[in-house]
Amino acid sequence: MIIGSGFGQKEKALAINLPDQTRYRAPESMNAVEIVEVGARDGLQNEAVAFSTAQKVELINSAVAAGIKRLEVASFVHPKFVPQMADAEAVVADLPDNSAVQYIGLVLNKRGYMRAEATREGNKRGVDEVGCVTTASNTFGQKNQGQDRAETIAETKAIIKMAKRDGLSAQVTISTAFGCPFEGEVAEQTVIDMAKELADADPREIAIADTIGVAVPNQVADMVAKLKETLPGMPIRAHFHNTRNTGIANAWAAYSAGATVLDASVAGLGGCPFAPRATGNIGTEDLIYLLDRSGVTSGVELDKMISLAKWIENILGRPAPSMVSQAGGFPTP
Amino acid sequence: MIIGSGFGQKEKALAINLPDQTRYRAPESMNAVEIVEVGARDGLQNEAVAFSTAQKVELINSAVAAGIKRLEVASFVHPKFVPQMADAEAVVADLPDNSAVQYIGLVLNKRGYMRAEATREGNKRGVDEVGCVTTASNTFGQKNQGQDRAETIAETKAIIKMAKRDGLSAQVTISTAFGCPFEGEVAEQTVIDMAKELADADPREIAIADTIGVAVPNQVADMVAKLKETLPGMPIRAHFHNTRNTGIANAWAAYSAGATVLDASVAGLGGCPFAPRATGNIGTEDLIYLLDRSGVTSGVELDKMISLAKWIENILGRPAPSMVSQAGGFPTP
Repeated sequence: MIIGSGFGQKEKALAINLPDQTRYRAPESMNAVEIVEVGARDGLQNEAVAFSTAQKVELINSAVAAGIKRLEVASFVHPKFVPQMADAEAVVADLPDNSAVQYIGLVLNKRGYMRAEATREGNKRGVDEVGCVTTASNTFGQKNQGQDRAETIAETKAIIKMAKRDGLSAQVTISTAFGCPFEGEVAEQTVIDMAKELADADPREIAIADTIGVAVPNQVADMVAKLKETLPGMPIRAHFHNTRNTGIANAWAAYSAGATVLDASVAGLGGCPFAPRATGNIGTEDLIYLLDRSGVTSGVELDKMISLAKWIENILGRPAPSMVSQAGGFPTP
Repeated sequence: MIIGSGFGQKEKALAINLPDQTRYRAPESMNAVEIVEVGARDGLQNEAVAFSTAQKVELINSAVAAGIKRLEVASFVHPKFVPQMADAEAVVADLPDNSAVQYIGLVLNKRGYMRAEATREGNKRGVDEVGCVTTASNTFGQKNQGQDRAETIAETKAIIKMAKRDGLSAQVTISTAFGCPFEGEVAEQTVIDMAKELADADPREIAIADTIGVAVPNQVADMVAKLKETLPGMPIRAHFHNTRNTGIANAWAAYSAGATVLDASVAGLGGCPFAPRATGNIGTEDLIYLLDRSGVTSGVELDKMISLAKWIENILGRPAPSMVSQAGGFPTP
């Protein structure tokens, strides 16, 4: 299969007179996006099949071997609510001290932050970054993390402050940014206002998450553009679920509008146990295929990610919801 | 669920100052696209479960009841090659004489055309339109219909001429327009040149088909734009398979670039028996969800199309590959 070939946006004018065979091959690094692999956290937390600590570590190491440089490795949440994440500390303790990689721990409150920070005690590697979660929908916030919108913002600002004190990187995701399973429509201005308030705490980036997979490309492009206009210089990450088959279209819209980081889950694992009918994240293989063929560099090797998806399928005992893991890459004669 | 609401492209400036609740509701008919339902042909021809003639007619009538105005109803191909289409004449004979609907019969050669034309003998309704198929890839053409590229073009031009003589509408699809399972890359210029040659025969529209689901949005947008530039006034239809999860993104790119007609298959049925690993067409429900939420009018009702997908699932005995049929539309509080 062909890696790194495809259309780019910016080289269109440049490529227009090249022969057809070279036309789809965009210069390396001309267009690039960072993929955050969320399979070990957002992916596994909604799977009925529990992965062992060793299997989680193998998943993470394999993703890194495929070229992933930034990953959600665990969620520091109460095991009563998310039993799949009960071994968060054990997973982090077993991760190699690879300086080229950034490990992200998800924290929903100060208690979770304390656990994440504790993974670094005694000169241990631990997590490099904490991911905070705010919610645009009050009802979803109450059901997902027992906090309304304002409370998730206040908690996140406090956590970012603690992280800065402790020398930890911190970022924040705005969940249900495009719709809520309980409230329906979420006003775009609510998300923009939240982002403005969160930006005051100076996170490393702000992410918008389509938690339940309802967004459409124009909506995504519009929101990313507004965020960039409102918060110049703030990196924007986007997180999509493929629940209604718009996930890849939305990822492309987010990238095209200026998001520089995209979440994806190997094998298309994932979902959210508290969001009715939410299915998996967009598959990392599917995203890499899209980017490769579009001339956008991600640094991740498609064939290695497909192999990892196959390994995961074997553990799950069912086909992965991602599609490139089934179909393979672009056909070679 | 909300039908007909969503973002539009052209009303963005107009809507920008409206309150949030009305912002996603685009004025009716401001943006519109025609959906050609291909489930009864491209969908069923690749299913292991054979639908009876009565079931096919029920599928077609239900799609029309949901708002579909143009459908592929059968393929006039030798039953040795596609046994699922052996009852083509019987299906057409049982269709109601609804003047608001256009029935399309697929024909791969003059013999197929003769059969399609014969459905109209003796003042019978019969098909309203024949769909011809050319191929951008010589190898695929040989394997799919026993003709190389030039032969498919010559045959199509001859068929369009016969159709004009007989007062039948005729259009043409360029298959493997974005890649071939056997040859790999297909040069964009090949497709543009084919379209130019086919336009000489004056078909009602020219379609580009991603037969094996390899296209990416920029590639699609680029090709649609070039076709419109090369053939001003010629309606462009686009046909996508979701094999690598790019189908909905490609449909959106095609619409955004100026394609006015999109093929889709209820329940996401379909594929091609001669294209290795090709999976289903984009699901009609998934496409309607995208269009509704984007403020693009299709005239098709999502809930009725989901009901039809559920009826099909029941016959197939497995979940449909389309996703909105599983997840439902946008959540209502």
